[in-house]
Amino acid sequence: MDVLAEANRLAAEGKPVLSLAVGQPAAPVPEPVRRAGAEALLGGRLGYTDTLGRAETRAAIAAHYRDHYGVDVPAGRIAVTTGSSAGFSLAFLALADPGARVAIASPGYPAYRNILKALSLEAVELPAAGSAFDLDALIAAHRERPIAMLLLASPANPTGTVIERDELGAIIAACRDHGIVFISDEIYHRLRYTGDDVTALEFGDDVIVINSFSKYYCMTGWRIGWMVLPETLVRPVERLAQSLYICAPDVSQIAAPHAFACTGDYEAIKEGYRANRALLLERLPGMGIEFAAAPDGAFYVWCDISRHTNDSMAFAKRMLSEIHVAATPGADFDVFEGERHIRFSYAGDQAVIAEALDRIEAWL
Amino acid sequence: MDVLAEANRLAAEGKPVLSLAVGQPAAPVPEPVRRAGAEALLGGRLGYTDTLGRAETRAAIAAHYRDHYGVDVPAGRIAVTTGSSAGFSLAFLALADPGARVAIASPGYPAYRNILKALSLEAVELPAAGSAFDLDALIAAHRERPIAMLLLASPANPTGTVIERDELGAIIAACRDHGIVFISDEIYHRLRYTGDDVTALEFGDDVIVINSFSKYYCMTGWRIGWMVLPETLVRPVERLAQSLYICAPDVSQIAAPHAFACTGDYEAIKEGYRANRALLLERLPGMGIEFAAAPDGAFYVWCDISRHTNDSMAFAKRMLSEIHVAATPGADFDVFEGERHIRFSYAGDQAVIAEALDRIEAWL
Repeated sequence: MDVLAEANRLAAEGKPVLSLAVGQPAAPVPEPVRRAGAEALLGGRLGYTDTLGRAETRAAIAAHYRDHYGVDVPAGRIAVTTGSSAGFSLAFLALADPGARVAIASPGYPAYRNILKALSLEAVELPAAGSAFDLDALIAAHRERPIAMLLLASPANPTGTVIERDELGAIIAACRDHGIVFISDEIYHRLRYTGDDVTALEFGDDVIVINSFSKYYCMTGWRIGWMVLPETLVRPVERLAQSLYICAPDVSQIAAPHAFACTGDYEAIKEGYRANRALLLERLPGMGIEFAAAPDGAFYVWCDISRHTNDSMAFAKRMLSEIHVAATPGADFDVFEGERHIRFSYAGDQAVIAEALDRIEAWL
Repeated sequence: MDVLAEANRLAAEGKPVLSLAVGQPAAPVPEPVRRAGAEALLGGRLGYTDTLGRAETRAAIAAHYRDHYGVDVPAGRIAVTTGSSAGFSLAFLALADPGARVAIASPGYPAYRNILKALSLEAVELPAAGSAFDLDALIAAHRERPIAMLLLASPANPTGTVIERDELGAIIAACRDHGIVFISDEIYHRLRYTGDDVTALEFGDDVIVINSFSKYYCMTGWRIGWMVLPETLVRPVERLAQSLYICAPDVSQIAAPHAFACTGDYEAIKEGYRANRALLLERLPGMGIEFAAAPDGAFYVWCDISRHTNDSMAFAKRMLSEIHVAATPGADFDVFEGERHIRFSYAGDQAVIAEALDRIEAWL
């Protein structure tokens, strides 16, 4: 937040700031989605919806599981949520009381830890520096004191790493054996560059999947996402959501299903990310910036900058003030080794990435 | 929820259901607001906003306090939220740890109690059957075990009662004396029929105000509201909101300020509520249905139906199945005397209210 605020301040001063800091697509939402939303607004008949979402929105998401993954999920197990943010809170509150332990990977999305803390749950941060998740560390922590849930993202933020099918299956099986609920954050699905997506739903109906229209579908500001719930959690989540959220924004519920019909537009946007990623893979190592993890998905590279600094916050601040390039320092993502890492987002325009790389190269 | 689900089921079967159950305006949002939203969507440049909201949205809300109340509130103390729902969670989480006690009035909005329970806080329900809030009961409960916050709505749901200026000042002063944070739910402001609104902000900058564009402004499905925060809570709420919500829906943030310029449209809608209210005041007493509280504001009447039943849920279900009129049974609103009360909402069309009254009269 501090880096972003400073970047915005400099940009407002007219400085030529290039941002590789935000996990937000530069591309606009495809026109059919925007038009569906605009028509709904002009029609004037928006209101509260059923807490779990409009029937047609839930049905469209269920159909997406058949079409994209070949997995059959009844619409009755879909909860439309106010972004994935709401999904995390609802999953945690439905399953745990204060003091319960929830395992997450470090590096990982900082909001996991912050939401858990806000809800008085204990985040158990497991090192996941490379590509492989450390299942033994999970079991060891669980033996110390029981862990209620494991939350993992694949592709992951900030690393871009992917958990392969066999490994995901093994993690879910181990969770089941130990009575740990597996929560799969699939918000970066459809943004993998080296193979196909694997949804946790392939491995059973007892997992919770959290997803969103924010990343691949470019609908960040629309605040719309979804959960796929085990049958037994549908009613508890409905009751929690009724009081905590009432419902997700109606216009977003109406427009979002149209995104599933815009695959051509979205794949073109993804090709841009692929080109950006190639540029980063080609040029960063030559500057002494190494990839700390395999950047196979999402739109992030997680970089080891220990050849240049052991204080990534100071590095990010200097880079911003001296060459006006914003990137995200590692400390918030990684409690273990954040100080020597930095995250670059490549969700932006290629010209911005290329210019930023030129400036960084000259600066280093 | 059960009554609503049954009403929807009957309506889907083609039954002529009349709903006086939902606290949602029947009128559409004024056209300039919808058009501003539609233009923003078509323009395509929506995204995450600052967590506390767009600068222009915060400024417009601050200006509303000057224009409508003559109270000066800097935009920096406004947090734009995803409906008032988010406001409640943020206030509770910013101020209390699990087990803390939060006083609310009973009857009151059921989500208060449910949100508190979801967040492992203790709801201390204070009887507020008539118009006056029982300050002595608050102090007595506080002496038993300290109360962290008092949350009151004026006008209130489900009663429609208003806390007058002197009483509100006395309650806030007593809270201050006892170290209890006062949270003022002002979501039904501008919907008073017997006098002017009084905002808690008249009595100091140490209160939290929660409000929304859902009721007077008819923007339920847009999920947009706001908080006015004491200076010291701005940063804590910003940090919580960043992780729990990221931001309120961008299109709603862009459109909502236009609502402040549509007072003519909104006052015409309010005149409809006023006429509906007059109809209920005129006809219900003749059917042996008494007003349990003075219905001075919001768009609800809270009725004593003890001449007809001591089981308001059974009464509501029979009324729905036999004459297809939906109203909300009292138990969820009032833990003390809910079984002999029922809530009618008059946010709907006058023809619906009139026809429902005819059916109820014939049925009773």
